[in-house]
Amino acid sequence: MSTQAQVAAIELFERHRPTLQRAVEAIGERGYWSPFPESLKQYPEASVQNAQAQFEALLGRHFELEGPDPLARVGRERSPYGLELGVSYDQYDADALMTRLQAALPAWRDAGPRARLGACMEILQRLNALSPTLAHAVMHTSGQAYMMAFQAGGPHAQDRALEVLAYAWQAMAAVPETASWIKPQGKQAPLLLNKRWHIVPRGLALVIGCSTFPTWNTYPGLFASLVSGNPVMVKAHPGAILPLAMSVKVAQQVLAELGFDPALVSLVVDTPEAPVSQRLALDARVKLVDFTGSSAFGNWLEANARQAQVFTEKAGINSVIIDSVRDFQAVARNLALSLSLYSGQMCTTPQAIYVPRGGIATADGHLSFAEVAQGLAGAIRDFLGDNERACAVLGAIQSNATAERIQACRRLGELLLDSEVREHPQFPGARVRTPLLLQVDASAREAYGEERFGPIAFVIATDDSAHSLQLAGELIAEKGALTLGVYSTDDKVLERAEALAQEVAVALSINLDGGVLVNQSAAFSDFHASGGNPAANASITDMAFVVRRFVVVQSRRHVAAWERADDLL
Amino acid sequence: MSTQAQVAAIELFERHRPTLQRAVEAIGERGYWSPFPESLKQYPEASVQNAQAQFEALLGRHFELEGPDPLARVGRERSPYGLELGVSYDQYDADALMTRLQAALPAWRDAGPRARLGACMEILQRLNALSPTLAHAVMHTSGQAYMMAFQAGGPHAQDRALEVLAYAWQAMAAVPETASWIKPQGKQAPLLLNKRWHIVPRGLALVIGCSTFPTWNTYPGLFASLVSGNPVMVKAHPGAILPLAMSVKVAQQVLAELGFDPALVSLVVDTPEAPVSQRLALDARVKLVDFTGSSAFGNWLEANARQAQVFTEKAGINSVIIDSVRDFQAVARNLALSLSLYSGQMCTTPQAIYVPRGGIATADGHLSFAEVAQGLAGAIRDFLGDNERACAVLGAIQSNATAERIQACRRLGELLLDSEVREHPQFPGARVRTPLLLQVDASAREAYGEERFGPIAFVIATDDSAHSLQLAGELIAEKGALTLGVYSTDDKVLERAEALAQEVAVALSINLDGGVLVNQSAAFSDFHASGGNPAANASITDMAFVVRRFVVVQSRRHVAAWERADDLL
Repeated sequence: MSTQAQVAAIELFERHRPTLQRAVEAIGERGYWSPFPESLKQYPEASVQNAQAQFEALLGRHFELEGPDPLARVGRERSPYGLELGVSYDQYDADALMTRLQAALPAWRDAGPRARLGACMEILQRLNALSPTLAHAVMHTSGQAYMMAFQAGGPHAQDRALEVLAYAWQAMAAVPETASWIKPQGKQAPLLLNKRWHIVPRGLALVIGCSTFPTWNTYPGLFASLVSGNPVMVKAHPGAILPLAMSVKVAQQVLAELGFDPALVSLVVDTPEAPVSQRLALDARVKLVDFTGSSAFGNWLEANARQAQVFTEKAGINSVIIDSVRDFQAVARNLALSLSLYSGQMCTTPQAIYVPRGGIATADGHLSFAEVAQGLAGAIRDFLGDNERACAVLGAIQSNATAERIQACRRLGELLLDSEVREHPQFPGARVRTPLLLQVDASAREAYGEERFGPIAFVIATDDSAHSLQLAGELIAEKGALTLGVYSTDDKVLERAEALAQEVAVALSINLDGGVLVNQSAAFSDFHASGGNPAANASITDMAFVVRRFVVVQSRRHVAAWERADDLL
Repeated sequence: MSTQAQVAAIELFERHRPTLQRAVEAIGERGYWSPFPESLKQYPEASVQNAQAQFEALLGRHFELEGPDPLARVGRERSPYGLELGVSYDQYDADALMTRLQAALPAWRDAGPRARLGACMEILQRLNALSPTLAHAVMHTSGQAYMMAFQAGGPHAQDRALEVLAYAWQAMAAVPETASWIKPQGKQAPLLLNKRWHIVPRGLALVIGCSTFPTWNTYPGLFASLVSGNPVMVKAHPGAILPLAMSVKVAQQVLAELGFDPALVSLVVDTPEAPVSQRLALDARVKLVDFTGSSAFGNWLEANARQAQVFTEKAGINSVIIDSVRDFQAVARNLALSLSLYSGQMCTTPQAIYVPRGGIATADGHLSFAEVAQGLAGAIRDFLGDNERACAVLGAIQSNATAERIQACRRLGELLLDSEVREHPQFPGARVRTPLLLQVDASAREAYGEERFGPIAFVIATDDSAHSLQLAGELIAEKGALTLGVYSTDDKVLERAEALAQEVAVALSINLDGGVLVNQSAAFSDFHASGGNPAANASITDMAFVVRRFVVVQSRRHVAAWERADDLL
């Protein structure tokens, strides 16, 4: 009963199988691995050279995608670098879209895991080829600098999608398609049942993207739901539609070429004035919701979208504890980059930096609290001294609200380093800001104990490192965090930190003073979010992120003695 | 940093490892397999002969378990076979108990997966040895006949626990304990991070048992939570405490022998007048809840125990569709046994039997609707003709409410077979009832479309088999079901049934007319519940049932160039 689409997709599966199998090994080993190069030099020269022109060719036009008859056109994206994108997108009637997706579901479900994996792997490979162009779209929506937009929005996002596919393949392949169940009955003929198992999708999936990492944060949910058989509505943030529209187009092309309904992956757009996420998330047909964004909306989804499995990544208060260091300059340089990279707009950027008010030990002697605080401020100042380099690291501030927040937070503590407005060398209209660094006492929890999204961080004076650990633990337990960095040369402190990390389920980074930042998480190795504290209700990605998206349905058929071939018994 | 308890438990892991590995193979192959014999003949003669005396030695006494200082003693179990058990159990202050469990958590967590598996496997093996005695406790609380109480309450329940442990071992072993992440940096020295991963339990677990299958329905949640590192409160149904008290005692003995706090598995008791489940389920420390029972309470848990992962098995309307058969007598005999076994008190027993009002085709010619309906009634009557055999299959009705329900339902349709009160040959006080079989029209959905727990079933006259499939599908989608049986000699009908099973996520059994019943599900092969319709929000057991009980917490430590051994690079 194979369909043509199924056969074609399974051919793709066989073609991509070696990569998929290597990815399965990678998630088991968790060393360094990636199939998608993060250097532009490893992409065809033409694709790199033409990237900007291809991006610009999309601007000021309507972006065509497959879907039901559109109701309206929307789209008012404005680049954080100043330009109006001028791209419009079709908006569909929600019911018409969901009716279409429900009609498309059975063929996608019945194609089976291998066919779906084949299609998803092909989509990924084409997304990878598109990375240089996609990077411009990510840059001019998120505000990331080009190189970061390329890496995080391209190969790193694709890595995460492949990681999801590896888990999904493992999970789906673990369920056999058929088996014979033969139970001995003493001298009687054994009981014989022929059994079948089907991977059955939950229903329709909704993936709600964010404005800062439109692809990186959307792909895991998108691919996890799609490969499990669920048609996916990709709801883009009104400020970052284009990267997802381009991604949806690639998926639709692959699906259409194979003979599936391209609308199995559909773009959903809205405006800040008339948002649609709430209505969609509560629809009885929607059984899966992925969301990255504010705690308020994430918590609302968890509380209200009860008909769905809801996966959220929300706000948190990422923390760094400085107890003692070998080389303070190296630590300060590392943290300066952590705080500057994409202007603190990563969900993993530290906000609370705990330092004993009596200062810290270093290999070069004692440093007072003021020396540590000033040293951090100085390191940021030095690092951002060259404006061109600064802009290539800071990127632009995605939203006005974040720029305004910097101003609003200036009075929350003593200024260690004020935020500056910078002029971008290529984009005079870019919204560029340097980090704001404030000094506060541990008692000022109302200042540092709320997420201050953007380039805003606090150096917090504590009684001692035990106090630092206690405060960080309490805050993470209450408000959540994706990352905790600890600097110590004392094994006892590190042991305590290791225990604390388990108590509040936060990823711990120890003594990062070289080329790795606490904000960075590597696919196939690092688990992004634990799913065990308020910053996220799921790990993105692990087995639990995938296996809840399908159920297994079985059938078993009695084989009577007269029906049996002799060789079976 | 190994503790003595950890070392001892890992020794047990090594001892039981072959069985565990065979179980891992079994869940991948899903053929017939069980390590726990279901024939009493395969248990030591003495343990079988002494079983009744050992059970009786427990009656009329206080049952001693480990826990905090008790507040009170409760327990008023009365056997459905008539006798008062007279056993009392300690009731603890909930806060004191949870404080004790929280204190016990870190050592259990830090012992690691292998140690926890070793302890759990040992508990299981000792439960298996106790099966003949445990069977009496299951019998005199659930009302199951002795052989069923032995099989379902002993080896089959242990099979399900082992299945959980196999999934847990697979899931936990898939996360490496450590890895080196080495990222090339061109001509520079590679980046090197040493990484560690910890399996971290969610918190405290609550497992709420039911009165009909106190061990079979409790063990999966108990072992899944425990092996993942979560201390477990086993809340017994007030009518079926003893089998769980005995099981908890075995767990406590193993834990104590190893040097862990035996209270890691604690019994919680209450009374119908002062139930404690709601309060416990809402406690912030409780992160996992397993429940088997009414839809009302299951839905309440799902809606309200928001701080926890909630796994429920609730009510449903199991259905049978008769389209056409080869041998109607064989089908009727099979269904007679399905409806009689444990007086229809299995969560998998059919309630709604759809038959075309124009009758069905058989290999021996056409049978009218009336012939089918009367044939089923006659088969039950014949099967239960011998009172001794009848009582050995029916067992006793667990609760008065179920006995009363039979009476209350008599007017819901035309009587095909009235329920009879029978006298049990050994237990004159036993509450024995034969099945009630009613005939209704498809339009009488208010009659057959609500769960009527107990020996109550409906033969429903439909327009044709397409109508039967449609009605069954609608009802299962709305009310849920664990099982759907279909009888047809027409491949088209069977294909449609196979599709329907996927649409409403119900386990399908085809043409069972021999020694396997639609109500029976075999561990390591059948998935019990799909988790995809209202009868259960989880499959018990699959990977998703296990992986949500722990999170993975990582730490990574930068290894500077000067710290590295040359052979690493």
